[in-house]
Amino acid sequence: MEARIQVTYAFAAASKEAAEVRAREIALEQTVELPEGVTPDAVAEAVVARTESVEPHRKGRWRAVLSFAPDLVGDDVPQLLNVVYGNVSVHRDVRVLDVELPPAVLEALPGPAVGLGGMRGLFPAAEGRPILVSAVKPVGLSSAELADRCAALARGGIDVIKDDHGLSDQRFAGFRRRVERCAEAVRGARPAGEAEALYFPNVTAPFDRIMERVELAREVGCRGVVVSPFLVGLDVLRWLAASSGMAVLAHPAHAGGLLGAEHGIAPDVLFGYLLRVLGADGVIFMNPGGRFAVSEADADAVVARLRAPIEHVAPAVPVLGGGVDADRVPHWIDRYGVDCMFLVGSSLYAQADLEEAARKLRGAVEAHCRG
Amino acid sequence: MEARIQVTYAFAAASKEAAEVRAREIALEQTVELPEGVTPDAVAEAVVARTESVEPHRKGRWRAVLSFAPDLVGDDVPQLLNVVYGNVSVHRDVRVLDVELPPAVLEALPGPAVGLGGMRGLFPAAEGRPILVSAVKPVGLSSAELADRCAALARGGIDVIKDDHGLSDQRFAGFRRRVERCAEAVRGARPAGEAEALYFPNVTAPFDRIMERVELAREVGCRGVVVSPFLVGLDVLRWLAASSGMAVLAHPAHAGGLLGAEHGIAPDVLFGYLLRVLGADGVIFMNPGGRFAVSEADADAVVARLRAPIEHVAPAVPVLGGGVDADRVPHWIDRYGVDCMFLVGSSLYAQADLEEAARKLRGAVEAHCRG
Repeated sequence: MEARIQVTYAFAAASKEAAEVRAREIALEQTVELPEGVTPDAVAEAVVARTESVEPHRKGRWRAVLSFAPDLVGDDVPQLLNVVYGNVSVHRDVRVLDVELPPAVLEALPGPAVGLGGMRGLFPAAEGRPILVSAVKPVGLSSAELADRCAALARGGIDVIKDDHGLSDQRFAGFRRRVERCAEAVRGARPAGEAEALYFPNVTAPFDRIMERVELAREVGCRGVVVSPFLVGLDVLRWLAASSGMAVLAHPAHAGGLLGAEHGIAPDVLFGYLLRVLGADGVIFMNPGGRFAVSEADADAVVARLRAPIEHVAPAVPVLGGGVDADRVPHWIDRYGVDCMFLVGSSLYAQADLEEAARKLRGAVEAHCRG
Repeated sequence: MEARIQVTYAFAAASKEAAEVRAREIALEQTVELPEGVTPDAVAEAVVARTESVEPHRKGRWRAVLSFAPDLVGDDVPQLLNVVYGNVSVHRDVRVLDVELPPAVLEALPGPAVGLGGMRGLFPAAEGRPILVSAVKPVGLSSAELADRCAALARGGIDVIKDDHGLSDQRFAGFRRRVERCAEAVRGARPAGEAEALYFPNVTAPFDRIMERVELAREVGCRGVVVSPFLVGLDVLRWLAASSGMAVLAHPAHAGGLLGAEHGIAPDVLFGYLLRVLGADGVIFMNPGGRFAVSEADADAVVARLRAPIEHVAPAVPVLGGGVDADRVPHWIDRYGVDCMFLVGSSLYAQADLEEAARKLRGAVEAHCRG
């Protein structure tokens, strides 16, 4: 029998019988969208999700594993998202606890084209330590001013300088000019013989301009980009991985709707599994103790799942951001190891000298990883 | 002074002072993403959101109006969404209560290209009554079987037969063949001289296939399409309105993450304002009393806002769906008037004869609107 898409849902129900009814309602809602008995038997057999198990979860809540035919999805990411959490997302008590895709669906997705290994290859100087990322910002500066900040961060030893995710094509610093200036500034920043830093522009853009921004980034010689998939649709990740030839960092802006305690999609499934199998090489999410309320358990689970074996799918790189204090980076290295990226922005900018702040961070990270 | 983007946020705070601090944190997070004092003054003045007011909301919660410079957004819809509810979406207590766009931003957006007036023009037979919509389904049927259902619904008097939102390009009924067969079936269904029904295919698709699906729908002669903007990115609506030349119905699949009571975006803002100004001609949402828990107050507010005056922006059509019982349609006409579309699916399919079920619905609606 062909392996099926497995989705574990948690939801409220008063009894096991009620939970079984609820699971069946979800199975119908997410496929035929018709009540029981209205779909011809052979069609129902082929497309209605099957209830594989129903078990107690927490007080008043149950967990059900439903399995879906891969043919409902094929290689269609919006349809995958629809089957997993389309109409049923409107029910405020339904949360996706797990998703597991069968080989037929995984093979139709690119997964990370660069992945952890490829990312390490882009930054030979970062061997034995985490890759350091910072953001060029804020929106409102000119392209020349942003390029100066890029250069300072690169000289100070940051490996990746990415656009802040709010930089698009505003009049302050239009996309083309900004990308040209910033890429040039980063390329020329380090002394000859030292490993280069790389600049990753933000290609989050209107639907009909994404392709031209990616093309421009490529022409300028960029080796990676950042995108906010929750703003432009998750399938853009798949397309970037399949066709851009660049490393892709996924930014979590606008993802918060999916992060309810009893609603949405569990963070390790969303950030650790789905974004990875769609093609993110690095996944930015919120580190615990930063300016977003994220539990250590959730962060641990995301990190673990980004790097865990999945069939042929390359591991992706956890990118801890959202208020990573430079002073705390050694702590996070102890917790998550060196196969990470640390996105440190505000705590560098809060210091008087950006280049010096970057240099101190790089020095502290190297000393910690040597020791 | 240039008019600004106004966003009203509600959030938790223990006192007015704490609420003011919180408002300022949101203003920084949604723009410069830097702590207070780090951004050069002139840049901060140009781009950091301003706190216009902070007032008590509900117990323990406050509402703050923040205003943003239109230059942060321009005509960039993902960036609009990012400014309104990007990073701050990760804070589980923050909800968007209102959004108001200034003329500079509204003029950069198409708004509904067809709108209520244009939709009425497509269905002259529906004068004086709501436009009746049904869905062809389920996924799993062949194109020929789906076309037969289309024909039955059209003969029975349904005005718009739209693809179920779960129909994409599955092997059961590939997009091209399905759209050709269904369009043909609907076109030929009514006797000569009677107003034609129209078939609206689903163009929700992978990022790099949306344009070709829209092109194919146009070639086949379709006058409208359905899309799930929450699955493919809200900017696809803007692009469809600006360039497709067809009526656009927006489907709410996967929108549920934004529908929290103290998190997300208020339904009238999301469905009634944002989807309309982006370009939806008709907005499908869940009617109260259907299979989704939606309050009458929320539905009332969405309906009102879709049709309320906004500068030059055409009114859009409320499309009540998600379990509209055929027998209850007269009740909803009394509540929402005739300038609506009613999406009736399951309750027709649950009857033995689909064509006859459609005919009964059409007859009941006409009788009610005459009476």
